[in-house]
Amino acid sequence: MSLHPSIAAVRRPVRATLEQLEPGEKVVVACSGGADSLALASAAIFEGHKLGLHVIGATVDHGMQGGSAAQAEKVVAQLAEMGVDETVTATVEVKTDGDGPEAAARQARYAVLDQLAERLGASVILLGHTRDDQAETVLLGLTRGSGARSLSGMRASFDRYRRPLLATTRTDTETACQVEGIDVWNDPHNRDFAYTRARIRHRVLPVLEEHLGPGVTDALARTAEQLREDADFIDDIAEAMHRELDGTLPVGVLAQYPAAVRTRVLRIAALEAGSPAAELTREHVKAVEALVTGWRGQRWIDLPGHIRALRTDSSIVFESGPSPTSI
Amino acid sequence: MSLHPSIAAVRRPVRATLEQLEPGEKVVVACSGGADSLALASAAIFEGHKLGLHVIGATVDHGMQGGSAAQAEKVVAQLAEMGVDETVTATVEVKTDGDGPEAAARQARYAVLDQLAERLGASVILLGHTRDDQAETVLLGLTRGSGARSLSGMRASFDRYRRPLLATTRTDTETACQVEGIDVWNDPHNRDFAYTRARIRHRVLPVLEEHLGPGVTDALARTAEQLREDADFIDDIAEAMHRELDGTLPVGVLAQYPAAVRTRVLRIAALEAGSPAAELTREHVKAVEALVTGWRGQRWIDLPGHIRALRTDSSIVFESGPSPTSI
Repeated sequence: MSLHPSIAAVRRPVRATLEQLEPGEKVVVACSGGADSLALASAAIFEGHKLGLHVIGATVDHGMQGGSAAQAEKVVAQLAEMGVDETVTATVEVKTDGDGPEAAARQARYAVLDQLAERLGASVILLGHTRDDQAETVLLGLTRGSGARSLSGMRASFDRYRRPLLATTRTDTETACQVEGIDVWNDPHNRDFAYTRARIRHRVLPVLEEHLGPGVTDALARTAEQLREDADFIDDIAEAMHRELDGTLPVGVLAQYPAAVRTRVLRIAALEAGSPAAELTREHVKAVEALVTGWRGQRWIDLPGHIRALRTDSSIVFESGPSPTSI
Repeated sequence: MSLHPSIAAVRRPVRATLEQLEPGEKVVVACSGGADSLALASAAIFEGHKLGLHVIGATVDHGMQGGSAAQAEKVVAQLAEMGVDETVTATVEVKTDGDGPEAAARQARYAVLDQLAERLGASVILLGHTRDDQAETVLLGLTRGSGARSLSGMRASFDRYRRPLLATTRTDTETACQVEGIDVWNDPHNRDFAYTRARIRHRVLPVLEEHLGPGVTDALARTAEQLREDADFIDDIAEAMHRELDGTLPVGVLAQYPAAVRTRVLRIAALEAGSPAAELTREHVKAVEALVTGWRGQRWIDLPGHIRALRTDSSIVFESGPSPTSI
């Protein structure tokens, strides 16, 4: 009996990831109970056990929906039945101030998964994000208009996290679960159009596929990979340049830099001066850049966080502007 | 009486562009008869005459629609009435083989505009592309999934071409025409959904704005600007590296490069070896890269144009593969 192609499509990249480990090492599979992460768990159990790894199924209860504790219990029971060596449930409290509920939940989830891995001595945490998640992330970044970094999607690997399914389609994970008889949970959040990601998934991407062709999701995911390479490269250079300048921003030197590097160095300097990353836009940075490249004696530039950038003699300087109470 | 804001939004960037010229210089305004280019023509006449410039209204008959010659005549008559110093009509023959009718029409248009400018002694050709066109171009590039360059949209300036309205909205050009009583032609191609751009304009962008917010068009245009800076920077570096290697591709050197540069150097080398740009995908280049970064004795990589890439000793080599008849 030959392996179903969807199961193969999930197992192949999971095997490639787990092959990097030594027998006896521990792997955490983060599982929400959705098709993506259940297919991942199933593949991790199958491939992990062949490689002599200890597979831990973990689920996080965000406490954001009624019945979330019962849902978490259901997932760990399912994981146990599927054959993981150990299960663990973590409860987190999500603070929804600041960057919105999705970002807050994500942050809380990573913090608790890190703690879990630390406590259990796991070398790797597997996440079930698929190629479709990647395409959605690129579109989310696009709506922010903030360049290569925000378009470069999710990393396949960072710290102890691995995303083996980043080139696998969501459909393959769904089919794999169906073929294996795994009962899948459909997160109501994924259908709650208050969430931008849900609107992208169910409203935007289908329209893109309809009018631009079925290859759009794939093109978005490919774009992410390339832009990540580009962003890694230029960000590294800009950080090195910024370190070399050692706190100074001489106009003569900045003028020699290519725009891609100059704007990044100025952004790093503005962040260091205390301007908050979430509010410092491309427009702000370009206005500061104009003090170098379009100098005609203009006044200072006001930046978020009550910071102002000005040109003195032949340098750019960031200083604290008037406090809000003094205006 | 104060100036209508939409007319100001069109005139301001046109003035900034034309101020770079000396009195007496000649400017060609390329005009299709649509709102974008008629608003551009009106602003170029107003601002150009204040600056002592000679303004030439040009229209190109692509011969792709019935009545296109009559339409071209109507546009030049309109331009003459609006006050241009000179009008000119050029007829082009569009060969639709290869990259599709839109690309072919564009190529033919630029060739004939270049000839016109040369013959008339014009230093600058103005094009009426707006911020909305820019956003559409980014989405078109996105569907190709080929990285920063294809996402970086249209340049504000190249050779003698200038696009002063690239930060102006299409709505402003339409309102400016309405306020000035300029009769606008609606190109049926813009409603012909056989054209990808028409589908993006009327089907895709409205859905993006509905679900992701009205700032999407602006975000796409901003993204284009940043990615263009990035692409310019990395492409320059890759070209310099490729020149330095002087026809060789030593694995040891390539392995040291960051991925963003390595993939570009390999792409340049593959194109030089004769692989056609339109067919050489990211996947091809990544497969060649794996001969450097993921070497496990694999065989050669077949590339479009009957080229193959292989690793010999410690270099990557491109050579002609078997011709199609010998397969």
